[in-house]
Amino acid sequence: MLFEHKPIRMEIWPNMSLKEFTKELEGAGFTAKRLAEAIEIYKRMLDDKECYKVLGAGGALIAGGMRNVFVKLIHAKMIDALILTGSILTHDLIESFGVQHYQGKAIVDDVKLAKEGTMRIYDVFLPKQGFLVHEEEIQKILPKLPQKELSPSELLFELGKHIKDENSIIRACTDTNTKIFAPSITDSMLGFQIWMYSQTSALKMNPQLDIRDIMDIVWKKNRFGLVILGGGVGKHFLAGMMQVSGKSLNYAIQITLDRPEHGGVSGMHLDEAKSWKKLAPDALSTNIVCDVTLAFPLLVASLLDYKKT
Amino acid sequence: MLFEHKPIRMEIWPNMSLKEFTKELEGAGFTAKRLAEAIEIYKRMLDDKECYKVLGAGGALIAGGMRNVFVKLIHAKMIDALILTGSILTHDLIESFGVQHYQGKAIVDDVKLAKEGTMRIYDVFLPKQGFLVHEEEIQKILPKLPQKELSPSELLFELGKHIKDENSIIRACTDTNTKIFAPSITDSMLGFQIWMYSQTSALKMNPQLDIRDIMDIVWKKNRFGLVILGGGVGKHFLAGMMQVSGKSLNYAIQITLDRPEHGGVSGMHLDEAKSWKKLAPDALSTNIVCDVTLAFPLLVASLLDYKKT
Amino acid sequence: MLFEHKPIRMEIWPNMSLKEFTKELEGAGFTAKRLAEAIEIYKRMLDDKECYKVLGAGGALIAGGMRNVFVKLIHAKMIDALILTGSILTHDLIESFGVQHYQGKAIVDDVKLAKEGTMRIYDVFLPKQGFLVHEEEIQKILPKLPQKELSPSELLFELGKHIKDENSIIRACTDTNTKIFAPSITDSMLGFQIWMYSQTSALKMNPQLDIRDIMDIVWKKNRFGLVILGGGVGKHFLAGMMQVSGKSLNYAIQITLDRPEHGGVSGMHLDEAKSWKKLAPDALSTNIVCDVTLAFPLLVASLLDYKKT
Amino acid sequence: MLFEHKPIRMEIWPNMSLKEFTKELEGAGFTAKRLAEAIEIYKRMLDDKECYKVLGAGGALIAGGMRNVFVKLIHAKMIDALILTGSILTHDLIESFGVQHYQGKAIVDDVKLAKEGTMRIYDVFLPKQGFLVHEEEIQKILPKLPQKELSPSELLFELGKHIKDENSIIRACTDTNTKIFAPSITDSMLGFQIWMYSQTSALKMNPQLDIRDIMDIVWKKNRFGLVILGGGVGKHFLAGMMQVSGKSLNYAIQITLDRPEHGGVSGMHLDEAKSWKKLAPDALSTNIVCDVTLAFPLLVASLLDYKKT
Repeated sequence: MLFEHKPIRMEIWPNMSLKEFTKELEGAGFTAKRLAEAIEIYKRMLDDKECYKVLGAGGALIAGGMRNVFVKLIHAKMIDALILTGSILTHDLIESFGVQHYQGKAIVDDVKLAKEGTMRIYDVFLPKQGFLVHEEEIQKILPKLPQKELSPSELLFELGKHIKDENSIIRACTDTNTKIFAPSITDSMLGFQIWMYSQTSALKMNPQLDIRDIMDIVWKKNRFGLVILGGGVGKHFLAGMMQVSGKSLNYAIQITLDRPEHGGVSGMHLDEAKSWKKLAPDALSTNIVCDVTLAFPLLVASLLDYKKT
Repeated sequence: MLFEHKPIRMEIWPNMSLKEFTKELEGAGFTAKRLAEAIEIYKRMLDDKECYKVLGAGGALIAGGMRNVFVKLIHAKMIDALILTGSILTHDLIESFGVQHYQGKAIVDDVKLAKEGTMRIYDVFLPKQGFLVHEEEIQKILPKLPQKELSPSELLFELGKHIKDENSIIRACTDTNTKIFAPSITDSMLGFQIWMYSQTSALKMNPQLDIRDIMDIVWKKNRFGLVILGGGVGKHFLAGMMQVSGKSLNYAIQITLDRPEHGGVSGMHLDEAKSWKKLAPDALSTNIVCDVTLAFPLLVASLLDYKKT
Repeated sequence: MLFEHKPIRMEIWPNMSLKEFTKELEGAGFTAKRLAEAIEIYKRMLDDKECYKVLGAGGALIAGGMRNVFVKLIHAKMIDALILTGSILTHDLIESFGVQHYQGKAIVDDVKLAKEGTMRIYDVFLPKQGFLVHEEEIQKILPKLPQKELSPSELLFELGKHIKDENSIIRACTDTNTKIFAPSITDSMLGFQIWMYSQTSALKMNPQLDIRDIMDIVWKKNRFGLVILGGGVGKHFLAGMMQVSGKSLNYAIQITLDRPEHGGVSGMHLDEAKSWKKLAPDALSTNIVCDVTLAFPLLVASLLDYKKT
Repeated sequence: MLFEHKPIRMEIWPNMSLKEFTKELEGAGFTAKRLAEAIEIYKRMLDDKECYKVLGAGGALIAGGMRNVFVKLIHAKMIDALILTGSILTHDLIESFGVQHYQGKAIVDDVKLAKEGTMRIYDVFLPKQGFLVHEEEIQKILPKLPQKELSPSELLFELGKHIKDENSIIRACTDTNTKIFAPSITDSMLGFQIWMYSQTSALKMNPQLDIRDIMDIVWKKNRFGLVILGGGVGKHFLAGMMQVSGKSLNYAIQITLDRPEHGGVSGMHLDEAKSWKKLAPDALSTNIVCDVTLAFPLLVASLLDYKKT
């Protein structure tokens, strides 16, 4: 815990800057304080020149509007690698190919939506056309990639070269040489499209090869930081590989609404990872119980100009 | 839903103002969008000159650092009445009497804390002395109040006259003639102290009289808005009384982490209130799934200068 | 923790008795184990002849179908007192007066429901008529009660004498001399109806007097157990009064879906209460993260014949 | 919704059988009713001879004690295929190789645990030795498997032939010819061990091939049922593949504590899947908000002798 022993005290006033606001959260309790801790921990990660910084993410973050937050973080060189679900990658591509998500509502007749060709993600709508365009466009790009066996991270790096949309997470990663690992990519439309294409081509993708690619880094680096959005493989994959290598995370920030009491990895309190030696005994960490769509942009927007002013 | 049909799109950049940030949330999904909706709904409440605006709150909000947020909202004349738990009132008084809450941690030996005289509220600590000072000071003030039967709202109004701390919610309400209802005040240290004092004095407090006091308003007014923090009586009391009177809320904003699926009132989705006619069919409402300590200051700080620039 | 150090192992088989099933849960982890702990803790409370046993409850438990579970527990003399919200009491009376709750659904047009006179409580429906019948019947009974100032617990004891329905919680308490405290009764339709009647009669109810009534017990008894359903005043009131008296709970069982991380009392982990000395350092306690409608009947049905076979 | 329009009414009595208990839940509301619905839906799946029944699971279910529940379900021929995370498979193997999980506690010094070689999964402990034994034993078995490229489902089928423990999920599946899909197996110790072995052998596993294996079934079958425990790939993989094929689930049961409001797939309400045509418009489905360790054994134990008495 970074913020301890201080009296609880925060103030607000008209026309605050975002930085003034998040600075005030340093004097609060509960989630407000946790967010301020996350900003401070991220700054220390940025100051720690040895630290390899990874962002692991799961959940409907493209539908939630987080694309630009990812892209700004990547372009600011504040992250070295991402671990993403196939769904985040698929939805990033859908938007890159010109189909947008729309604000909708959560209480609605889903059978009627289906008839209208609208898919619902809680209170966000996606036209069915998104998946048709995704199939069409991705099948045009895949022949342009190296026609051999690739890891997801290799494939995604190559894929990024063929994306025109500057707000694409995949392209931003290729442009900045930021790695994307996707060990569970099989479970997504992108995974399915790649499998379809590989039926009649020499391009094969094997997610197991992302173990090779991430182990290359784990062996080389000695200090690590992990920012976890939502949970799942984005939380588990790096830490699991570090455990194998006898290394531990030095910084960890978690933003999720999942609960810890049923033992599932997504909601797991970060302290638990200390018993596994996945988190160093003296690591700086904080657990933020919040929807990513609110806490993640607050975190990144507060950091964007760090070390630049 | 205010924000519908718009494409999902939000951006962040360095050195944003808080207002720029919350404006961007209007293009997001999920909790981010809900927060932007809350700001818009609150603005419409402020524009609606007929609207009687009530803030109902439960939970550890003083421990969480929300005192100044309440006080700024009250002084800005953005609220007409509050419905508070006895615990919020007690902790406001503890701070008014000079004992502060401190930032602590959640994973700790509670038996050891007890020996040290520290009381824990998740990751916030309160010195035991807080309740001793509260008893001492409140027993000095009670003799100065009118020695007769009072409703909680009458008693709290009088009590506010004797509080020196300018950051006190109770005092801010007295100073601005903002009502505080506290129908469940019995279940608190303040309720207990008042009961103790009334054993040997003519001052009696009867929470049932808050029904009289709130009904006075419910009968007089025709348009209502309710901002709900956390749940409990702060959510239920006004709406229950409005149901009796055949009136309905026209605006409602809810910030809570409680869930709806077990039927409890705190987590109840606001749409449910339409079936009870507690919420008007055309009411503007939004449900924010978030810790109050983050969403409430974001909401209020974004509004503080509304209509003043 | 009762169950520690044992290997995780549970089995199921065809045609289990409920007792065999809950016995097997003793070998599980997470919520399953917590439920088995609750059964064991309750048995130890029953074996502890000095222990005063209180059930505190909030939430939509009558709508959820829990009436008979309460009544069976009360008639089995397994509980000495209840702390209930006014809403639980109101809905118990509505059913006593012949209007039933119905199984409905959660995703529905609430405005249409309102037009049909149906009130929704998540996936349960209550005909609007329930409140009309409640008003009519309660106003017939109130004149039969002692026409003087009463505490909620006194009033409810007298009220129980006039209820014919044998499945009524209030009547079951009167019949077995089990106390019902209701410090927040003001915030309910029952509280409102009593206030209405008291406008033109000598019957006055003052919730503050429940402090007197519960303190009578707190001073007399030395060992206490609390079973908490849902949270709110049912969790806070007894423990608050014990704190004042320097006494502590020796047993505590909590069943709620509320979270601890925002500091609110309902979701608070019971260990936190040790720092307040509300829970004895060596108390037996368990936290069950579950909807009451599933865990509470499992708990009570597993105990009903304890000491009787 | 199966249970609608019926009055809310459930009873309990001493010495109930589990079947009597879950029958009574048919008259409740909220989670209790949802569990009764799940039992009824599962029975209808069993009666529907055309229906292909899949169980998708994520979370710490072996740590939670659910092994025997899986095994009994598999041996009763009540399920045709499973979709599991690599973690569930790894922990099943650890137990098969003789290292057990133990009941522990959640509030503990994790750094001290690490020093003692104990890994914590909320309130369950696993000796560090578990992973050492897992490595040793799995590396003995892998050379006995076909040395060629395999899908996870092929590899797991072969692996099951070499497991001696009769309480193993993997073995039970091999013995009964029940398929196990594991599209995200890469993100687990089992995935890592297989990758290590494949470095120096002809045995290669490619998770993408599970798309081929599940599509074989999706194309052949016309009616589908899915029981979802916890969420993640176990929820998404089958339904995603069905969407591609223009087929829909006819039955779906979901048990999870994850929330829907942030759009993540795990907490997604099943109705949302209707807008995607992943769930048929007339499908029978229910959403149970509960820890799997309680609801899953209640469900399976209530079904074990269905059609056998």
